Amino acid sequence: MSAPVLARKPLDPALLAALRQRLGDRLSTSAAICEQHGKDESYHQPHAPDAVAFATSTEEVAAIVSLCAQYRTPVIPFGTGTSLEGHVAALKGGVCIDVSQMNRVLRVGVEDLDCTVEAGVTRKQLNEYLRDTGLFFPIDPGADASLGGMAATRASGTNAVRYGTMRENVLSLTVVLADGRVIHTSRRARKSAAGYDLTRLFVGSEGTLGVITEVTVRLYGIPESISSAVCAFPSIEDAVNTVILTIQSGIPVARIELLDEAQIDAINKYSKLDNPVAPTLFFEFHGTEAGAAEQVELVKEIAGEHGGNAFRWATTQEERSKLWQARHDAYYAALALRPGSKGWATDVCVPISRLAECIAETKRDLAQSPIPSALAGHVGDGNFHLIFMIDPNKPQEIAEASRLNDRMVERALAMEGTCTGEHGVGYGKLEFLHAEHGEALDVMRTIKQALDPDNIMNPGKIVRV
Amino acid sequence: MSAPVLARKPLDPALLAALRQRLGDRLSTSAAICEQHGKDESYHQPHAPDAVAFATSTEEVAAIVSLCAQYRTPVIPFGTGTSLEGHVAALKGGVCIDVSQMNRVLRVGVEDLDCTVEAGVTRKQLNEYLRDTGLFFPIDPGADASLGGMAATRASGTNAVRYGTMRENVLSLTVVLADGRVIHTSRRARKSAAGYDLTRLFVGSEGTLGVITEVTVRLYGIPESISSAVCAFPSIEDAVNTVILTIQSGIPVARIELLDEAQIDAINKYSKLDNPVAPTLFFEFHGTEAGAAEQVELVKEIAGEHGGNAFRWATTQEERSKLWQARHDAYYAALALRPGSKGWATDVCVPISRLAECIAETKRDLAQSPIPSALAGHVGDGNFHLIFMIDPNKPQEIAEASRLNDRMVERALAMEGTCTGEHGVGYGKLEFLHAEHGEALDVMRTIKQALDPDNIMNPGKIVRV
Repeated sequence: MSAPVLARKPLDPALLAALRQRLGDRLSTSAAICEQHGKDESYHQPHAPDAVAFATSTEEVAAIVSLCAQYRTPVIPFGTGTSLEGHVAALKGGVCIDVSQMNRVLRVGVEDLDCTVEAGVTRKQLNEYLRDTGLFFPIDPGADASLGGMAATRASGTNAVRYGTMRENVLSLTVVLADGRVIHTSRRARKSAAGYDLTRLFVGSEGTLGVITEVTVRLYGIPESISSAVCAFPSIEDAVNTVILTIQSGIPVARIELLDEAQIDAINKYSKLDNPVAPTLFFEFHGTEAGAAEQVELVKEIAGEHGGNAFRWATTQEERSKLWQARHDAYYAALALRPGSKGWATDVCVPISRLAECIAETKRDLAQSPIPSALAGHVGDGNFHLIFMIDPNKPQEIAEASRLNDRMVERALAMEGTCTGEHGVGYGKLEFLHAEHGEALDVMRTIKQALDPDNIMNPGKIVRV
Repeated sequence: MSAPVLARKPLDPALLAALRQRLGDRLSTSAAICEQHGKDESYHQPHAPDAVAFATSTEEVAAIVSLCAQYRTPVIPFGTGTSLEGHVAALKGGVCIDVSQMNRVLRVGVEDLDCTVEAGVTRKQLNEYLRDTGLFFPIDPGADASLGGMAATRASGTNAVRYGTMRENVLSLTVVLADGRVIHTSRRARKSAAGYDLTRLFVGSEGTLGVITEVTVRLYGIPESISSAVCAFPSIEDAVNTVILTIQSGIPVARIELLDEAQIDAINKYSKLDNPVAPTLFFEFHGTEAGAAEQVELVKEIAGEHGGNAFRWATTQEERSKLWQARHDAYYAALALRPGSKGWATDVCVPISRLAECIAETKRDLAQSPIPSALAGHVGDGNFHLIFMIDPNKPQEIAEASRLNDRMVERALAMEGTCTGEHGVGYGKLEFLHAEHGEALDVMRTIKQALDPDNIMNPGKIVRV
């Protein structure tokens, strides 16, 4: 998708000088660095910022934002650049604040099952750090994203069905506001009724209301028993209905992921696996030995009623890692099916009662289209993804992917669902927000204007001002 | 606590006439009705509104708010009047909107484990309605509050340790804004990354940003096995440490409630029970037969290590109801210890690692005070309550309760906790918000002013404008 046309003016030399004085060689205007920071992992057209500031502390981010505010210059936060809807594109130019050097784990509260990290800490880095504590951070969007970026985009992923999304797992944030002030969105208590929920307001705000510099998240004890399995089904309806019944039965599965036959074919080839090429569920069970075994029995019974009889188990840490790595590589595996193609990734989320119908209608659309595609999803949440493997040089392919995407979003909205379950809005899904929210979009715009009156915080994302 | 002095002007006769034309005898200006609607269950000084409008639909609430907006007249939403920090007091007069006649269950989604109700539906009414579906709504603040009020105050209660608070359990709200516009805060999908989290912004906003008219909440399958128990401990430290270890071990207890010896003495007398007069934990276990039994074994082991050896079980529905009714009557039971007294209820919440210390220091304060008091709490969340039984005619008792309350809040804040875990701000805790939030309170004020520029929505609560 091409970007909306936004006026872009060059950086004021006085601002540049002030930033350079403050940051020295941690300010870059090199074309390569700027280009790298204007693009994410999506098909969306990149837009390079005019400069990239590598910040090392909250105070420094505050100083940078204050300077940018003084010159009414856009500020775009950047973690690992793994967003999927053009979130980091500098549509109006400006200064990208790269927080990847803010990568310290500040505090682990083993007794409180929480920790505070700088925004640039990635989820794998955090779990590596936690290794000896018996605790882990479950949110897993696939990419090794930064916690700041995950908070900013309300990330979720494979474990959300059991552990929730960033919405449920962020306890508090440190945020630099559009005028450079620094706030802490809440205390560290597990719950509070003391005023507006600023934590949840900034989670999912995609840098449009402020720059997240520190994140306090919940942690969980590593379960006594973890086991994973894959199971193929005769049809996608059978697989989806297994998911629906599992969720409705209240079985606390840790992961329950759907891959369609195209996606299975792709990961078989990419990761050298031999899964039957059929709609398949990937499961993970967490619990005590007895509790996890009980979950397994219940799920096997439900799956068996839907033709899913052959569970293939991964019990060692190594086997499990291989299994989930294959799942996480689904995107790259799909692209490898059509060498030279580019991925157009999109997602929707619907109430689970509508999931089978939504997927079936979407698959019918795909079957009639010349563009290759693959479907995967965190179906326990009612959330699924499509990847279109398109030739970026063929405008008709882009148009066709866009048509299919529009139809899927309209279908999800008609089923009381949302235009994005977890990828976020960026500028890729901005046009759908009016259809989804109606008058409520005006409330979002009012909040944006109140907190960022000069529209310098990641302009052109979520709401158009 | 006396109210802040706010200018109060009489209702414009033209507004009154317009409201009467619209509502007929569902508009009341009778002194008795107005007085009843200006007070909640707290010790705070009541402030009667000038009129009470008994609304019957979202459209009607919108019409009332539009009229009030036209005359810049305060609007105060009212559910069951069971708030605890003066939330419903009409500090500047105005029109109270009583939603108790909006009491229809609009939709139950058995497959999606959710339902949509009008704001006046109470939690007991909803659970009665759900009786034949196998589902239940777990949030239980004690009082039979309305779902609208529970959403507005971010209620939690005894089950929150397992099922979360209203923050986690509201999926979507219908809200009438300060200018009479009606919005839906989100779709019904379990998760979404499509824009700012307006649902969470309105949950806990106490009527200061809009009037909640419909609530969509999560439901849960009634567990196969439910069992409750009480267990006395040699000291309050032993009881609290049992809670801390239980939570840190990740045991999914459904309820884990602390009552101190004063509170146990009170409920024994009030509910004709014979619990040992000692610090006591009330437990509830939900799960499959095997799962709940496993939880019980683990908790008994932890309790035993802390001197809690005698579990008294309530297994039948009737025994369980009696046990939890006694817990819920704690407030009235405490008051009955000192006939003619009035209750000053307050709560704080701290990270669980600080809970034992916070309770111990608070108990030392109480032991040195002439005012009788009792302590109870949802300690699995780090949340506990005090009730002071004061003689409302003795200013020195009010001053002493205020001093003890201030000290407890300051202690909780110093321990990274919050001034209220679940009672909310109203006007009773408003003065603590600057100490708790610092600059973030200005962000709350900015949002309030943006969404309610004339300050007509429950003025004088949460943030002073």
